[in-house]
Amino acid sequence: MSLLVVGSVALDSVETPQDRRDDVLGGSASFFSAVATLIRPVRLVAVVGQDFPEEHITFLRERGVDLSGLQRAEGRTFRWKGRYLPDMVGRETLETQLNVFESFDPKLSPGYRDSEFVFLANIHPVLQLSVLDQVAKPALVACDTMNLWINEERATLEQVLARVDILLINDEEAQLLTGHRNLLKAAALVRKMGPGRLVIKRGDAGALLFDEGGVFWAPAFPIESVVDPTGAGDSFAGGMVSYLAHTREQTPSALRRAMVYGSVIGSFCVEDFSLDRFRTLTKDEVLVRCRALGDLVRFEEVTL
Amino acid sequence: MSLLVVGSVALDSVETPQDRRDDVLGGSASFFSAVATLIRPVRLVAVVGQDFPEEHITFLRERGVDLSGLQRAEGRTFRWKGRYLPDMVGRETLETQLNVFESFDPKLSPGYRDSEFVFLANIHPVLQLSVLDQVAKPALVACDTMNLWINEERATLEQVLARVDILLINDEEAQLLTGHRNLLKAAALVRKMGPGRLVIKRGDAGALLFDEGGVFWAPAFPIESVVDPTGAGDSFAGGMVSYLAHTREQTPSALRRAMVYGSVIGSFCVEDFSLDRFRTLTKDEVLVRCRALGDLVRFEEVTL
Repeated sequence: MSLLVVGSVALDSVETPQDRRDDVLGGSASFFSAVATLIRPVRLVAVVGQDFPEEHITFLRERGVDLSGLQRAEGRTFRWKGRYLPDMVGRETLETQLNVFESFDPKLSPGYRDSEFVFLANIHPVLQLSVLDQVAKPALVACDTMNLWINEERATLEQVLARVDILLINDEEAQLLTGHRNLLKAAALVRKMGPGRLVIKRGDAGALLFDEGGVFWAPAFPIESVVDPTGAGDSFAGGMVSYLAHTREQTPSALRRAMVYGSVIGSFCVEDFSLDRFRTLTKDEVLVRCRALGDLVRFEEVTL
Repeated sequence: MSLLVVGSVALDSVETPQDRRDDVLGGSASFFSAVATLIRPVRLVAVVGQDFPEEHITFLRERGVDLSGLQRAEGRTFRWKGRYLPDMVGRETLETQLNVFESFDPKLSPGYRDSEFVFLANIHPVLQLSVLDQVAKPALVACDTMNLWINEERATLEQVLARVDILLINDEEAQLLTGHRNLLKAAALVRKMGPGRLVIKRGDAGALLFDEGGVFWAPAFPIESVVDPTGAGDSFAGGMVSYLAHTREQTPSALRRAMVYGSVIGSFCVEDFSLDRFRTLTKDEVLVRCRALGDLVRFEEVTL
């Protein structure tokens, strides 16, 4: 099934307590695409500036990313600079340069309008709506957002949510969106806004799925050496949505397996800077870790 | 199998964003005993003051707690006063009055020395050692501790750890004890100090078990209305250790089921103030929720 992602392609500068990298490949659409192409071709819609290194273009193309929707605009590429706290979960943003991303206007070519699986990464909800208006009849729309849009573009965001099948947000965003810290209460309210399926990401605690099958908790696979958490959420989304596109199933069982696949993909993401871990990651490694995640939570029936 | 707990019996004053209670029954040994007696009789060793309400004595006795080891000393009962932050996870201690607990010296009567399962709640490691010297040949010793003893009584604590089968601590304590934030690295170091099994409690993220069976993650059962988190950790311990005493098994499989049982017990604890939820809780309710915890993490094999 055809898979479309609309989001950012960026150059990230990342500091961790141990190490740092400057101007490495980043952005939601980059992570999503690098992950998804492990099992599905991807159509990417994004914008980069004149300074965007050709090697990244080559990397993405060689992975099977359809880059005909990647605009190259006058100016510099979107840049993000951040520093991780010692717990490797919390982080502070040191600098955000929107650059060409500021005037990003996602235009889908006629060949992209039949896309069946659509992921709207974290971009302005007006742009998310515009993409939805351009796709003909998607089988599944998944979407991310952030505190900025929840606070400042709520009405537009609500229009997006009404047209979305799966919303992926973190626990703080769920609270901001609903006024409830309690995840069960927040989830019930979000699902009334439109998305029948809600994924609440909780960092190293894992991610929860709320759907007609009830609640499912995909733990985060414990990693001995976390190098760089950047992109873990977008990698999770890339894993989850590409898995659903691959299986062509949307049952509660498939959704749970997609959550596990996404969680495992996220656990590989943090093992290296940028999306470097995906340069060598194999399907077999992913499947082995999916089984290990099963072992992590397996227990026999409790009786007395 | 005979089960012994040595710890605190206290009067707690608790503030939450919604409500408050003053001078209600608390303390590690109270929670542990109230939980354990759901399935096993318990021998309790602790101290209270002259002011300790008779109704609590009656409550514990009627549940099947053997109170012959409960000393009543001159002075006031140990008191703790705390306030929970809006996330209902973080909390600040407003006041601690050790009172009679300051000169607590756990003396085991001859009838207690054959205790087979022993839980050393969070008390001074010198007292934990003293208890270990008084029990003849325990089949299993589990133990809790806190940042104060890790920082200030490390040498004594290490003597305790060398004689303990299961250590239960939270993630911050594991970091303090080993210098590693990473749970896998911290766990490997703690297990070298003595305890073959380590439980790291992570609040609403659940608890992890590290033993010869590998790593097991018991998620926290999601609760719609958290009333008071006080005692959840001691309730977890009470559930886990009493389950092991009940099954008479110490296999990795039994340990995992004990973790699930403990996690579910902890999820009931937070549904009311003090240990009030245990006044009505039935074994059937616990078993139903253990099955629900299985459903929460159940997924079919991920294939591609």
